[in-house]
Amino acid sequence: MDFGAIVKVLGYLLLIEAVLMVPSLLVALYYNSPDRMGILISIFITLIVGFIMSRVSKYRDEDIQGKEGLAIVGLGWILVSVFGALPFVLTDAIPSWIDAFFETVSGFTTTGASVVDDIESFPKGVLFWRSFTHWIGGMGILVFTVAILPMLGLGGFQVYKIESTGPMADRIVPRVRDTAKILYTIYLTFTIIEIILLMLGGMPFYDSALHTFGTVGTGGFGIKANSVGYYNSTYIHLIIGTFMIMCGINFSLYYSLFKGKWRDVLRNEELRFYLSIVIISVLLITLNIYKHMGYNSLGLALRDSYFQVGSIVTTTGYATVDFDQWPTFSKLILFILMFLGGCAGSTAGGIKIIRILILIKAIKREFFKILHPRAVIPIKINDRAISSNTVTGIAAFFMLYSIIFMIGTIIISLDGVDFESAITSVAATLSNIGPAFGFAGPARTYAEFSNVSKLLMSAFMLFGRLELFPLIILLNPAIWKSENFIKHR
Amino acid sequence: MDFGAIVKVLGYLLLIEAVLMVPSLLVALYYNSPDRMGILISIFITLIVGFIMSRVSKYRDEDIQGKEGLAIVGLGWILVSVFGALPFVLTDAIPSWIDAFFETVSGFTTTGASVVDDIESFPKGVLFWRSFTHWIGGMGILVFTVAILPMLGLGGFQVYKIESTGPMADRIVPRVRDTAKILYTIYLTFTIIEIILLMLGGMPFYDSALHTFGTVGTGGFGIKANSVGYYNSTYIHLIIGTFMIMCGINFSLYYSLFKGKWRDVLRNEELRFYLSIVIISVLLITLNIYKHMGYNSLGLALRDSYFQVGSIVTTTGYATVDFDQWPTFSKLILFILMFLGGCAGSTAGGIKIIRILILIKAIKREFFKILHPRAVIPIKINDRAISSNTVTGIAAFFMLYSIIFMIGTIIISLDGVDFESAITSVAATLSNIGPAFGFAGPARTYAEFSNVSKLLMSAFMLFGRLELFPLIILLNPAIWKSENFIKHR
Repeated sequence: MDFGAIVKVLGYLLLIEAVLMVPSLLVALYYNSPDRMGILISIFITLIVGFIMSRVSKYRDEDIQGKEGLAIVGLGWILVSVFGALPFVLTDAIPSWIDAFFETVSGFTTTGASVVDDIESFPKGVLFWRSFTHWIGGMGILVFTVAILPMLGLGGFQVYKIESTGPMADRIVPRVRDTAKILYTIYLTFTIIEIILLMLGGMPFYDSALHTFGTVGTGGFGIKANSVGYYNSTYIHLIIGTFMIMCGINFSLYYSLFKGKWRDVLRNEELRFYLSIVIISVLLITLNIYKHMGYNSLGLALRDSYFQVGSIVTTTGYATVDFDQWPTFSKLILFILMFLGGCAGSTAGGIKIIRILILIKAIKREFFKILHPRAVIPIKINDRAISSNTVTGIAAFFMLYSIIFMIGTIIISLDGVDFESAITSVAATLSNIGPAFGFAGPARTYAEFSNVSKLLMSAFMLFGRLELFPLIILLNPAIWKSENFIKHR
Repeated sequence: MDFGAIVKVLGYLLLIEAVLMVPSLLVALYYNSPDRMGILISIFITLIVGFIMSRVSKYRDEDIQGKEGLAIVGLGWILVSVFGALPFVLTDAIPSWIDAFFETVSGFTTTGASVVDDIESFPKGVLFWRSFTHWIGGMGILVFTVAILPMLGLGGFQVYKIESTGPMADRIVPRVRDTAKILYTIYLTFTIIEIILLMLGGMPFYDSALHTFGTVGTGGFGIKANSVGYYNSTYIHLIIGTFMIMCGINFSLYYSLFKGKWRDVLRNEELRFYLSIVIISVLLITLNIYKHMGYNSLGLALRDSYFQVGSIVTTTGYATVDFDQWPTFSKLILFILMFLGGCAGSTAGGIKIIRILILIKAIKREFFKILHPRAVIPIKINDRAISSNTVTGIAAFFMLYSIIFMIGTIIISLDGVDFESAITSVAATLSNIGPAFGFAGPARTYAEFSNVSKLLMSAFMLFGRLELFPLIILLNPAIWKSENFIKHR
């Protein structure tokens, strides 16, 4: 392990982070907000530490192998969250270090779980920073899943391989950098369009920008006490709801669309399965809440159901109503959506639709084998056979997810919370959603959990965001000692 | 599909069931209990229907192929439950047909979920029959898993292949019939020993027999309002607790023990994992309830924890205390044990330890691949490589289990129960446990669920007991049409 190279790259990361803090400073200055000084100091500290780290050793590109890459990703997200917490602490917006760390991890992992009880009195600069971490995190996760994960070739990460839906090309474009550039262009385009559309609905620019950051990153930090519910406008609910659902779709499909490959997109199995789940869930919940929650019109029930299903399945976490008050039927549907998550190659968290789809195809194959025991049937997605290695990798992912979820709930329950709160708060952090039910419901925050639980949940958010394996492997001492490995591939 | 052969075999099954009802009649006669006549009529009806069905067509052994075998197993469990409900209905002990069917399915599948609110006023004959269905069911499931499942070679059912732990033989004994005889001998031996040991503890013969039926079949129907808690004797708790844990172990290991292969048994990985889970769970829950439930001594907490962990992990469902009142920490541990279940080749339900173990090894392999990407590493259990087909089969099983669980909870929630009750009652029926938390907690019954839910839960019990695939495939019309298949193997 080349620690020098790691420190150096991490230093560069901090320098970038310092630059990314500047817009928040400008916002604070523009609004003449009292948090100006705290943000300025934060930028200063981050710059200095980043500068020192980036000068600490000589560094050549060749020193960065797969192992160093993993370490950089894992340590990078943690380090960036530690320094990203500075603006919260130094402006006294969130005085506790642990709370501020939790909030920042929640931001960068695009979770949206908050410890802030009175968000409306938050100073404008750090409020901007808080939502901006979603936007940065969403961008970061796109590179991570597109450029780094497929290289590992395990845990079923093959599902992230960017590929055109056609039969010829194996990637959107040959080189990772070009791929990333395309994804960023789509991401930026979505950002601009949503801001404009929200402003057309009468939302101020500042609010529009912050809500858009939370939408395209599928983060979900609200800036009002009752989240998006503050805006009593069906138009705004529909815009945010639709953009959430759009950002839960594999971004490479938008490139295919742009290239005019309509048919490939329409035939994409993950997309079809994802949209089917959304539609069925919306309809079931609409009928259920219309019947039990005293709605005057089916249209309003449909609006709220659409928004909430979109918010949860994409692991965003915005709320227009307190869905913790909904009947168990609707809550259980949302609970299941928490695990599914969005499509691979989107900014959404969770297990991902493609993995679920492949495991369902494995079930179908077992049934088929009863009738045709001698048939050898590969599992296919979009007419491509999935290797059995990928299937067992996905099974391992699913099992590891379950194990972390189960052990997590047991530990969190020591905070004295009830069964439902323990289960759903772990699901909501591990799947990068944000609000859960009960103790951590949409009308409440994570503030009341103990510090141990907050740190543990921060770990869950990072585990979930980084697809479990890459971060957890860092807990194994062997990786810090062994030879370089990915270059052997 | 040869329907004639199916009807004929099902007829024989009913004849056997009628014979198996005779002991209950004798009990009723001995105690001069008012349910004599109802049981007699039940036997009579079952005999007649069985006789007619068994004469309905000509039948040759060759007509029974794999497909017919599946149909016989699936329809057999349902039919036997319908006729097994007769004694409850005809004696007015459980007047509702649906309730009686639920109770009988719960008995034969060794679940132990009950709809009977006042069990202590139950007439002695049908009370005997109720517990005796556990004993019959336990025996039935041993043949099923040993003789029929491995033949299918899917869903990871290879894990049920009876094999000595040594490297030479592939089965305990070459022929299925001999294997079954050995398992039955062990089963009967356990039954006799437990009855004697309970009687030595001062429990009457009748009570001892009924509790033993529920123990060795890992069923769990109690015969007192507060289940085994009625007997305020540490000795009795320990005997039942220990026999439950013993009956959650693969029965073939007892044969190995009998053959003097101590080392193989001690090295058996499923056994070691199973016992580790039991020990860790017992210790954690002991400390937790000792701290929070006002126990005077650690010993008493240990006793209750031992009993309850044994009861839940083996999917028996007896209770000595109302564990629904325990802290969330302890309840969550029990909740997770509900899914694990016992070892393959035991009478326990659930996902089964061996499947969990194999999936955990799949996780380890993924981690290993990060460090050694070119290594080809098979997953091994007891030094034998598991084929990748088996691993994907297990993954499919795990996913199908999750899907049934999730959809089940959503439908059951329409009864208006809370989140915790919906989730745990489905888990407790699908894993053949019995008592759940909340609405279906150990101090309550399933009586209050709607008829639709009761029928659905009956299906869950059967699905779980028959390892999902064999029963669910019968819902596919193709199997009723297609050619014979297993003979092609």
